[in-house]
Amino acid sequence: MQTVTTFADLRAARRTLSGMVGFVPTMGYLHTGHVSLALRAGSECASVVASIFVNPTQFGPNEDLAKYPRDLPRDLAQLEAAGVELVWTPTPEEMYLPGFQTWVAVEGLTRPLEGEARPGHFRGVTTIVTKLFNAVGPDKAYFGQKDAQQAAVIRQMVKDLNFPIDIVVCPIVREPDGLALSSRNIYLNPEERQAATVLFLSLNAARSAYDSGERAADKLRSLVREKVASEPLARLQYVSCADYDTLEELETVRRKALLSMAVYFGKTRLIDNFVLE
Amino acid sequence: MQTVTTFADLRAARRTLSGMVGFVPTMGYLHTGHVSLALRAGSECASVVASIFVNPTQFGPNEDLAKYPRDLPRDLAQLEAAGVELVWTPTPEEMYLPGFQTWVAVEGLTRPLEGEARPGHFRGVTTIVTKLFNAVGPDKAYFGQKDAQQAAVIRQMVKDLNFPIDIVVCPIVREPDGLALSSRNIYLNPEERQAATVLFLSLNAARSAYDSGERAADKLRSLVREKVASEPLARLQYVSCADYDTLEELETVRRKALLSMAVYFGKTRLIDNFVLE
Repeated sequence: MQTVTTFADLRAARRTLSGMVGFVPTMGYLHTGHVSLALRAGSECASVVASIFVNPTQFGPNEDLAKYPRDLPRDLAQLEAAGVELVWTPTPEEMYLPGFQTWVAVEGLTRPLEGEARPGHFRGVTTIVTKLFNAVGPDKAYFGQKDAQQAAVIRQMVKDLNFPIDIVVCPIVREPDGLALSSRNIYLNPEERQAATVLFLSLNAARSAYDSGERAADKLRSLVREKVASEPLARLQYVSCADYDTLEELETVRRKALLSMAVYFGKTRLIDNFVLE
Repeated sequence: MQTVTTFADLRAARRTLSGMVGFVPTMGYLHTGHVSLALRAGSECASVVASIFVNPTQFGPNEDLAKYPRDLPRDLAQLEAAGVELVWTPTPEEMYLPGFQTWVAVEGLTRPLEGEARPGHFRGVTTIVTKLFNAVGPDKAYFGQKDAQQAAVIRQMVKDLNFPIDIVVCPIVREPDGLALSSRNIYLNPEERQAATVLFLSLNAARSAYDSGERAADKLRSLVREKVASEPLARLQYVSCADYDTLEELETVRRKALLSMAVYFGKTRLIDNFVLE
């Protein structure tokens, strides 16, 4: 496995890869969810490129950029074990040169949910993903369903801007008790960590109702809300039952839908979702 | 020369091209200026791709989208004579699918001059150029110095978004009397056509002063303004003497600068510029 930092080294290394190239963009502090993306890429492509970059432009001024967890040696070991050929670890200085002034923005899809809770977040995401796509030049790129709205936004961006890249969205990987893997889980203290199973449990409550025939979106959202209310350490930011493609809130679930939520435990913000097919 | 319309046909045709690919994006109704771009591309690349697309998103609501001149058979003949391998003539319907919602925007550089005169224009330009770049996948792309601010904006976008594409800006091609070639010259009636030499003449007046040592930007702008005022059919929209890279208005010309202007003749709006080295 080769590790490069500068654009020039990335481009030189990229030219040595032939055949289908799969790309796994990450912010590092990798967990089994990221590894599952790299493994899936390896099963579908001749070679796999990963990037590790904590992108400052997708963090709000009061968010956790400064304390976002980092562990490069452990990340590189995991990527190498997953069969990744090339890892790119760009610097913020080279990524955002003095005078940087170009932004990629997806409009409607970025307004609700995470976009409403985190103003500017998706503009940072779509801009950095465009830069990474242009620099790496992959045939396929792999994202996790955990960030469901991000996956929808990237799909829309790729379609609207004609990127010649297939976007592959991979299933959420969970702890044995149901908590979705996230680099931010490290922020939780032991009591919060235990309380955090409420995301999975509340989504499950709504899915059980759905599986039993409940189609009223308000009822499904209420089931999540009630379950979260039963957990004293949890503070619900939003629960949504929305159209899978447009992310518009539903009255009745008639087509593929996304049930999603954001919850605070102290200052730690976690998200999770289920797809209702 | 092959002509394709759909994305699918473009991608299939693009895959048959090997070696360096040069790209000439146009809005059609080609003149010798466009041909010079194709010839330059042919001299530097193994094959040349051109596109013809009158991009609706770069026209304002009161601009000339509906009457923008078109002559596809003549355009194709000129491109074939210039040695172009592949011409892409996409439809607006396939370019902007229902639900389209992603925009590429360059900020500071697009505020003055054409950006101020034509709100939204550059967002349309940078978005379509991103789409064309992604669809065509060229190694080099060719633009005319006639649209000086557009060239600066595209260079900034390519740098900021890490497009692996060299931007080549080619000199303005002029009529024998100095009028810069433009598809919009067709709008001029014979009197206006004659009056339109005032752009070249006024820029020349300023350049003569510059060549004689004048470095005060206000003086250079005044020379242009006075010359335009002497032409009854001309209505000056702006004259600028700005830093070549940042497009910030100058007090004193100390480095490479752009002297540029926009003039109305009736409803027809023409632009022109000189670079002061």
